[in-house]
Amino acid sequence: MSELLLAKEVNAALNEKIKKDAEELRSKGISPKLAIVRLGEREDDISYERGAVKRCESLGVEYEKVLLPADASQEEVLDVIERLNKDDSVHGVLLFRPLPKQFDESLIVNTLAPEKDVDGITDISLAGVFAGKALGFAPCTADACLRILDHYGIDPAGKRCTVIGRSLVIGRPVAMLLMQRNATVTICHTKTKDLPSVVREAELVVVAAGKAGIAGSECLGEGQTVLDVGIHVNEEGKLCGDVRFDEVKDSVAAITPVPGGVGGVTTSVLLEHVVEAAKKRLG
Amino acid sequence: MSELLLAKEVNAALNEKIKKDAEELRSKGISPKLAIVRLGEREDDISYERGAVKRCESLGVEYEKVLLPADASQEEVLDVIERLNKDDSVHGVLLFRPLPKQFDESLIVNTLAPEKDVDGITDISLAGVFAGKALGFAPCTADACLRILDHYGIDPAGKRCTVIGRSLVIGRPVAMLLMQRNATVTICHTKTKDLPSVVREAELVVVAAGKAGIAGSECLGEGQTVLDVGIHVNEEGKLCGDVRFDEVKDSVAAITPVPGGVGGVTTSVLLEHVVEAAKKRLG
Repeated sequence: MSELLLAKEVNAALNEKIKKDAEELRSKGISPKLAIVRLGEREDDISYERGAVKRCESLGVEYEKVLLPADASQEEVLDVIERLNKDDSVHGVLLFRPLPKQFDESLIVNTLAPEKDVDGITDISLAGVFAGKALGFAPCTADACLRILDHYGIDPAGKRCTVIGRSLVIGRPVAMLLMQRNATVTICHTKTKDLPSVVREAELVVVAAGKAGIAGSECLGEGQTVLDVGIHVNEEGKLCGDVRFDEVKDSVAAITPVPGGVGGVTTSVLLEHVVEAAKKRLG
Repeated sequence: MSELLLAKEVNAALNEKIKKDAEELRSKGISPKLAIVRLGEREDDISYERGAVKRCESLGVEYEKVLLPADASQEEVLDVIERLNKDDSVHGVLLFRPLPKQFDESLIVNTLAPEKDVDGITDISLAGVFAGKALGFAPCTADACLRILDHYGIDPAGKRCTVIGRSLVIGRPVAMLLMQRNATVTICHTKTKDLPSVVREAELVVVAAGKAGIAGSECLGEGQTVLDVGIHVNEEGKLCGDVRFDEVKDSVAAITPVPGGVGGVTTSVLLEHVVEAAKKRLG
């Protein structure tokens, strides 16, 4: 059996630090606060929101939910973002995406102040991730991958790392974060030829294709560390990842399960970013 | 002997198009214009500027040189950028970097309006390159690599491509541009272990390490297409690249020489960007 890289272990350390930092901030008169903006009633959003709210409550981070109907007008959404930008009591804003189709998503996203963009969705935050500069925050899931590696003492420096998936939410940013930590990174995607041979070269594999069970024993095996970013519901109604876990769990060196792996750390990183954003108010 | 990928052949086609587009724009009352901002008298800058001015003259693109002493104040530089931002007759601005050390380079660079940032140096332009969105322009040298491939009918889609170098001027942006063209891209750098074995896997190699003669027959050989981005002066006072050209010129499939390769296309791309920026004024 491989080593399991578990969210609960990463979170234990991370949450303790967030709680302590939040307390310290409050003692200095700043109460870290997250605003959650949700349009409509998408189940995934509600489920993530529920987890975030619960975590806020247990760690002493304030939150404010701003719920709008899916058929809200663009002006209403922009007004909300602008109000939250101006509200000094709010340190971070989580905006669920994708937005319903009638919206100019790029306009709405980039109205958000980069310093409150705790999930790294604005162009400026992305520029920071690309340039390796602290312009905003990295997307939480990408940061979560690094937190897991750090917790388990897996240093990407000098390692061959392959990222499967090139989305802006996870594939591209995690590739940049790994490169900034001196990994030699390869980005694979749907147009990659002979994916298994490319993935087999890697010591560390981040599977972020967004497709259930896309990688198994043909790609993954001995000596590899595998971070599975996918979260899907399979035919039996159970949660599963992008990796066919049962096929590789005995051969790889280390792997994150689904559930209980990368996805479980994302919310902690979100609140860590809120606390970091609040700390910047200390000047 | 390998196929030589020559700037003069790429430029012939590219310059004809720029000249025609500039003429057409003038016929519609818009005369495309580049502003060149140089601080001090660095030889590299002056040499690049001379080439750009000559090309402007031959292609019918206007130019304005703004020369400031190396000890100019930050306010003076910011005033110049702001004036050029507001000047409707200027469509593109080339600002030589690095700026002398007393300047806040990030502040000055990001004062430039992204729509006039024809060399892709602002955070917004970089976000566009990272996200694959038309927010600004890509850095000219990165775009030049793609122009060479296009001219010679070398399609990066599905190919293994390795970029040596992770600078923001060339390594990272060219990796993103190749990925957007569906290449499977690996980024190598100074911390990459066993560089030759990584580079040998690639069908297309962009050598952008900024170090004379860093790659030779240990890395490069049969079947590979090689773009050499380096420009250095060797001990004999001759121009040379990052690749030890003589060592590989008979074995690789195709290669850009230095001089007369990637560097020679960069100025054409700069003027192409100026014309593209001017076209956007047509609305």
